[in-house]
Amino acid sequence: MSLVVRVGSAARAPWWRDTLQSLLPEVDVRLWDDPGDRSKVEYAVVWQPPPGGLKSFPNLKVIVSMGAGIDHVLRDPELPRHLPIIRTVGPDLRQRMREYVLLHVLRLHRRLPETEASFRRKEWNQLITPVAPERPVGVLGLGNMGADSASHLAHIGFEVHGWSRRPKNVAGVICHSAAEGLDRLLKRVEILVCLLPLTPQTTGILNKELFAKLPEGACLINAGRGQHLVEEDLIPALDSGQLGGATLDVLQVEPAAEDHPFWTHPKILLTPHIASLIDPEVGSRLIAANLKLFMAGKPVPDMVDVAQGY
Amino acid sequence: MSLVVRVGSAARAPWWRDTLQSLLPEVDVRLWDDPGDRSKVEYAVVWQPPPGGLKSFPNLKVIVSMGAGIDHVLRDPELPRHLPIIRTVGPDLRQRMREYVLLHVLRLHRRLPETEASFRRKEWNQLITPVAPERPVGVLGLGNMGADSASHLAHIGFEVHGWSRRPKNVAGVICHSAAEGLDRLLKRVEILVCLLPLTPQTTGILNKELFAKLPEGACLINAGRGQHLVEEDLIPALDSGQLGGATLDVLQVEPAAEDHPFWTHPKILLTPHIASLIDPEVGSRLIAANLKLFMAGKPVPDMVDVAQGY
Repeated sequence: MSLVVRVGSAARAPWWRDTLQSLLPEVDVRLWDDPGDRSKVEYAVVWQPPPGGLKSFPNLKVIVSMGAGIDHVLRDPELPRHLPIIRTVGPDLRQRMREYVLLHVLRLHRRLPETEASFRRKEWNQLITPVAPERPVGVLGLGNMGADSASHLAHIGFEVHGWSRRPKNVAGVICHSAAEGLDRLLKRVEILVCLLPLTPQTTGILNKELFAKLPEGACLINAGRGQHLVEEDLIPALDSGQLGGATLDVLQVEPAAEDHPFWTHPKILLTPHIASLIDPEVGSRLIAANLKLFMAGKPVPDMVDVAQGY
Repeated sequence: MSLVVRVGSAARAPWWRDTLQSLLPEVDVRLWDDPGDRSKVEYAVVWQPPPGGLKSFPNLKVIVSMGAGIDHVLRDPELPRHLPIIRTVGPDLRQRMREYVLLHVLRLHRRLPETEASFRRKEWNQLITPVAPERPVGVLGLGNMGADSASHLAHIGFEVHGWSRRPKNVAGVICHSAAEGLDRLLKRVEILVCLLPLTPQTTGILNKELFAKLPEGACLINAGRGQHLVEEDLIPALDSGQLGGATLDVLQVEPAAEDHPFWTHPKILLTPHIASLIDPEVGSRLIAANLKLFMAGKPVPDMVDVAQGY
């Protein structure tokens, strides 16, 4: 009975193998590229598994996504669709996303990029901004992370609008759903945060038609997935003034190529997929705890509805 | 019966005169430099009145500070000490300070300055930071603004320590007081926020002895008054690594002179006294409402205890 682990960074892989081994002594933990007897592999802990890879383990019982999203697993056209998937969320990842969202909403709300630019020019430039209750902020996606970030934005004082596919209730948040609800939200919000899961319906949702529905000068924060954004639509929207700024934690291809125009556009800030980066110490404990529940035949709260896609 | 108004910006002075006149039709509102008959002036609404100025109005009944602090009034050696002082606080200024404190604590907590520097060098540099519950933050001063900012930091998830001269209770905050309490707080906190009132006891409190009591690499945010900081102690503490960064909204002399070393130090961000900048529309209504209470002989909640100094 063995477990294979595949992480984003090859350098960190041995650490993960050793840590999961010490937390799960009952299984033989091995690296993805050195799985031993493939028929013995029952558990796979993965980030972005290469297409066709998971089906090479004929007796796999469960897949663990090393993150809250499972799109990086589902994109494999040869994925054995009958397998259950456990995602990795928990308070630590929710806390990190909350911090990222609050930081970057406040940064744009208080016009910190302009204040810093004035500072570098040695200018004492007092910009008066509205208070948070007069700043409508939108959060797309009211899942585990979206609902938490939205309610914390509301607690700070912002007027927060949330959107989800199905109707939801989140404390302090004006909740919208369905296509009409999305249009109502877009008409109103001056800062838009994307925390959607990546599904066929949300792929490319951040595009020029959506930008045109926002008030002129609205700002975008994408901490969902790179595939939510139609990248070629962003710079024209910034240059026309339809968008006032963009903060992107995710891209279609990561890391961004050196000639990617987002590196140098004055209204864009790229952060390197750190919004809710998993801390190995915490993440490995979370993954091991979920696998222990699964092995014991108990319900796993972080089990995904694979048919729904998130 | 007249009122004189003196604001920081000469350009905005006529707006303030006209607005206060429309809100207080029963008095004759005049500019500080054009007061008419000085014996008729009963009300003064001021920011940084020049020394000796207020005593030139023999029948003054009350002074209104255009801000939460009154140090800029008390520093006048010829101030008529018997006069009551009303400060200008209210939810708007508290909200603005809360936003500033959360933004700048999160910015330092999440290492945004380094992330932005990497971005400008086109480096995809993933810095893992602790989560907020593992980041102790200190707030010096638990008055109207300090208590509000501290409790919001705690609500986000930080381990928050607060300090005030006299013992206080603030929801979610570990409260300290007196000199021993200050030392306990300093030993623990990795980000220190100063929101103290400026009094003889707090002048120069942010100095090299205090910095030496913090953990190595701690960061400082001063949104109190410039006189809280011994400016010549800051750069040596940053250069030795004792402090990891400083965000300063206030300075001894504002705006900073062009050759002030704070403009160009890589670990310093200056913001131009905007943490809780009064919005003229909101501030003028707040000031007029307080003056109406005073004129009607009713208690004014924003009346200062002048003997205490804040």
